[in-house]
Parts: sequence; C-alpha cells; structure tokens
Amino acid sequence: MPDNSFPITLSDILSAHEEIAPVIHRTPIFTSQGINKMVNSNVFFKCENLQHVGAFKMRGTSYTISTLNDEQLSNGVCTHSSGNHAQAVAKCAQMYGIPAHIVMPRNAPAVKRQAVQGYGATIYDCSAHIEDREKTLAIVQDQTGAHFIHPYNDYRVITGQATAAKELLEEAPNLNIIVAPVGGGGLLSGTGLITSFVSPTTKVYGAEPKMVDDAFRSFHSGKLEKNTTIDTIADGLLTLLGDKTLPIIRSTAQDILTVSEASIILAMRMIWERMKLIVEPSAAVPLAAVITHPQVFKEQTVGIILSGGNVDLSKLPF
Amino acid sequence: MPDNSFPITLSDILSAHEEIAPVIHRTPIFTSQGINKMVNSNVFFKCENLQHVGAFKMRGTSYTISTLNDEQLSNGVCTHSSGNHAQAVAKCAQMYGIPAHIVMPRNAPAVKRQAVQGYGATIYDCSAHIEDREKTLAIVQDQTGAHFIHPYNDYRVITGQATAAKELLEEAPNLNIIVAPVGGGGLLSGTGLITSFVSPTTKVYGAEPKMVDDAFRSFHSGKLEKNTTIDTIADGLLTLLGDKTLPIIRSTAQDILTVSEASIILAMRMIWERMKLIVEPSAAVPLAAVITHPQVFKEQTVGIILSGGNVDLSKLPF
Repeated sequence: MPDNSFPITLSDILSAHEEIAPVIHRTPIFTSQGINKMVNSNVFFKCENLQHVGAFKMRGTSYTISTLNDEQLSNGVCTHSSGNHAQAVAKCAQMYGIPAHIVMPRNAPAVKRQAVQGYGATIYDCSAHIEDREKTLAIVQDQTGAHFIHPYNDYRVITGQATAAKELLEEAPNLNIIVAPVGGGGLLSGTGLITSFVSPTTKVYGAEPKMVDDAFRSFHSGKLEKNTTIDTIADGLLTLLGDKTLPIIRSTAQDILTVSEASIILAMRMIWERMKLIVEPSAAVPLAAVITHPQVFKEQTVGIILSGGNVDLSKLPF
Repeated sequence: MPDNSFPITLSDILSAHEEIAPVIHRTPIFTSQGINKMVNSNVFFKCENLQHVGAFKMRGTSYTISTLNDEQLSNGVCTHSSGNHAQAVAKCAQMYGIPAHIVMPRNAPAVKRQAVQGYGATIYDCSAHIEDREKTLAIVQDQTGAHFIHPYNDYRVITGQATAAKELLEEAPNLNIIVAPVGGGGLLSGTGLITSFVSPTTKVYGAEPKMVDDAFRSFHSGKLEKNTTIDTIADGLLTLLGDKTLPIIRSTAQDILTVSEASIILAMRMIWERMKLIVEPSAAVPLAAVITHPQVFKEQTVGIILSGGNVDLSKLPF
C-alpha cells in the first residue's frame, strides 16, 4: 500500500501538469466495442502514441526542462538513447529553444537519427554497449555542461510521466484497473503515484514481456534484478528498473503481469485493425496482459496507456 | 457555381445530422506539424477512419435507414459490395435491429466476409462481375423485400455523407479548401453541397487516382465516363460516378485533381508515420493531391477527409 513518504506529492504532479500543458498534447482517449467484446472488459485507451514525437516521453522531459534555471538552460540538455527518449529530449529542447546533445549508438536506425537531427539536436556516435554510451555521455557533459535528462530514474521525469494517467483518470473515471507497460519504470511509477493519490481504489498493474521480466522479478524480490535475454519485439521495454522507480512501483502497483511475444503481436494487430491506431509493440503489452490474464480483467473497467507509436513500417511482425 | 435547384437542401443535411448523431462517432480532427511543414500548407484531417466500421460509409447508410417506415424496416436492407459499404450496411442494420442481406463476390477477402457476418448479416455469394452482382441482388430483393441501399447514387446517402464535412467545417473554420477522395462521388457530392451552403468561399476539390480518372473526365465532359484500367492501389475508388452525384459535383467542386500511385503510397506512409493513424490507400489520395499540386495548396488552410482505415495488414505497399 502507498505510504506518505513518497518523494513526489500530489501537488508536485498537479504543478507539473500545469507547467507542461502548453507544450504537450492532451491526447485523446478511445474505446473499441470490438475489442471490449473480445476481452470481456470495458477498456479505455489513453493515446500517447498521438503525443508529440509519438510517445509519452515528452511529459517527463518537458517537466524536467521546466525546472532548470537560466544558467542550466543556456548549457542545454543531454542524454543517451536510441529510442523515443532521444526524440523527446531533442524535440523538447527545440521547443524551449535550448541546445540538445544526444549520444546514440552507431547501429541506431537511420530514421531515428534523422528525426533527432530534424529537431536540431547534435548527435554523438558511440557503440551499442552501455558502458560506452555512459562514457561518451560523460565526455559530452564535461565539454558542454549540458544537463543530463535520465529516461526514467529521476523524480522529475517520474512526475512528468504521471500526468498521462492523471488525464486518463480525469476523463475515464471509475476505472477498476490501470495498466501501463514497464521498462525502466518511469511511466509505471508515475501512474502508480497519481492513481494512489486521486483514485486509491483503482488497482495499478505493470505489463512486461516474459522475455525481459526483470520488473516482475524485482517487484517480488525487492532487489534490482537483471535480464539474461533481451529477445523481445517490445524494444522500448529492454531497460531495467532503477533505484527510484522500483520502490514506488512496489508501493503503488498490485503486480507485474508478464506476457508472451505471440500475445504482444496479437494485441498490436488488434489495436491496428480495430482502432486504426499505429502503436509500437511496447504499447501493445498492456492489452496483451488483458488477453493473457482474464482472471484479473474479466468484466472490469480498465484504463490502458498506449505508450507510443514509433515503429519501423518496413519491419512489421505481420 | 452552386444553384438553387439541388434536390438536397441545407435543412435536409441539418436534420440528417441530428437523426444519425446517436449512432455515429463525431470523429476527431487531427493536425501534424511535420506534415504541414512538408507540404507548406495548414492541414486539418477529419478522421473518418476512426468512424464505426472504419469508414464514413456509416453516415449515408444510417441516414437512409432512418428514413424507412416500419414495414420497410421489418423487411430489412440489402446491398452488393465487397468493401466498406457492405460493413456499414451490416453494422447499421445491427444497430437498428433489422435484417441485412449482403451480396458479396466469392473472391472478397475472408476478413471482410467475417466482419460482415460478425454484424449478423446474411451473405449471398456471386461472381465478381457487376452483372452477376446486380442479378443476385435483384433475386435477394425479390425474395426478402429488403430495401436496397446504394453505395453512393442516392440522395439520402449523399445527404448522410455530407455530415462529415459539416463537422469538419464546424470545428476547423476558415478553411480555404476541402479535399475529398472521389470514387462513386457520394462523399464528394455531399461535401460540395454542405460547403456551398455553410462556407461558400471554401473551395472543394475531388482527388482521384490517375489510373481510374473517370471522375476527372466526367467532370470536364459532363457525361458519365468509364475507366479502361482499374490498376490502382486505392481499391475504394474503383467505382464510377452516378447520374445523381455527377451534376452535384460539377456544380459545387472546383475540379478533380488526379494523382499517381507512387504519390498515394507516399501520402499513406506520411499519415501512418507522422500521425500514427492507419488509413487505407483511398483515404491517402487527398494528401497525395496536396503533394502533387502545390500551386493549388501552397500556404492554404486545407481540410482533408480521411475516408477510411480498412487495409489488409498482410498486403502493405511498404
């Protein structure tokens, strides 16, 4: 159960939401009678795939930038990422008119590099190894004085990500359950916090691919577990929980529900075909959890955060 | 220029909109900064791909059913179609609780047959030839007394389709131009009518694949022209204009703009990648026209009707 010792308060999240409202989309919430019938639940989909840069990552990044002072702003921001976080940092920096320095592995898809460059960010190449990414980032920070925006393990980032579920709870009240995908845990910990504050009877679950079930194991052991395989189509969920996200998730979520690769592809196809929305595999993981665990979701009113829609159309699983 | 002799009045469209409001979605209107920059216009996309059954066809069909008397309702409705119109008739009949009889060519994709069956309609097989479709439909009508709902060449259907542009004009006012795809012309003639009534300074264009440019030729000759090829990816636009749609289009539209197959695929990919929306090739034809004819659209505020989102995910052009 949630306690009162969280480093983030309801008032923090409310202020953050006001702060970032001018630079984010208030994304729509859609339903599908067809999907409801198939899963025997009443599902509300919060469409963060329709957010700027196609992902919820804009929320935590824009809030973090809004907390910087003038000197920090003039030095700009930096991160290492090959995915949605890189695009969010680049796009937010452009919106706030400050420099962005992005460390990217050389093997990142060309389309992602182009998107980051299109937002005016400077790209620094490195190898795909995490050690090299961090070393390169340290050099960039040293040379530029740029402020590092962590993709998830930062209370400001978590506070910003909480605003997605805040909007969902405002517009789809009386939810029995909210499900968010879990990679590093920024979205899930923010979702758990705001839900415990404003709708404590709503249960929060994380959804995670079985192939990278570190969050499931960390949730139950209480320690930061690692993965031995990374063989999942949900490329946005490869990251591990952090020391800031794990305790919040253990206090505010009921459990982490794991799902098979086949169920992720099935759920993704259902959302594409039935809702006409492009979601990336990671964003389909919560619906995969609803399909996989009917004992949890049967006849419940469920909120799902569709976390993103960035997918390589030339490499589809169907 | 529009004259006063139209068989459909503003009041007809306003009443139709009230009549069908409970059974259709008021679909959202989305914009994309990225696409605006690429095409140097300010584009508002009316998302009929998010309509019930994934297409605007619900509008004309539901309005037509709403005009039937009790005896007609009890006999149900019928049509011949392998596409979105079949699904719309089946779904509307289900919503109104009346029988639906759908004549479908044997070579229609299994997924479309299943969708129609899923709405509780009865399917009658025929060959793909138009003569056989019409003959089979005549037999079905004779046996059931069902009311035929034409996919486009019917004033009630045109009146219903007009409500999509009505909503677009209400929410995105001051449009310089509206573009709708044109196949049989139901959507385009309805769009032209409502625009001439409520926003006469807004120009209306039809958009059509070069490969099936009967509407372009009919618009300029004043006669119902035929196609000699049907080799387009925009499978929703293979039909020919009718004697009811052509005169309305000639009176209310500026012109028909034709586009290449490559530009349709490019526009479709832009909408998928940038807007995270699944649209079928036919729905991408208006954006293809914006890309192809910059002299018409440069720096204009443009409304586009995204007509549908039903696409076979295993047969994508990219």
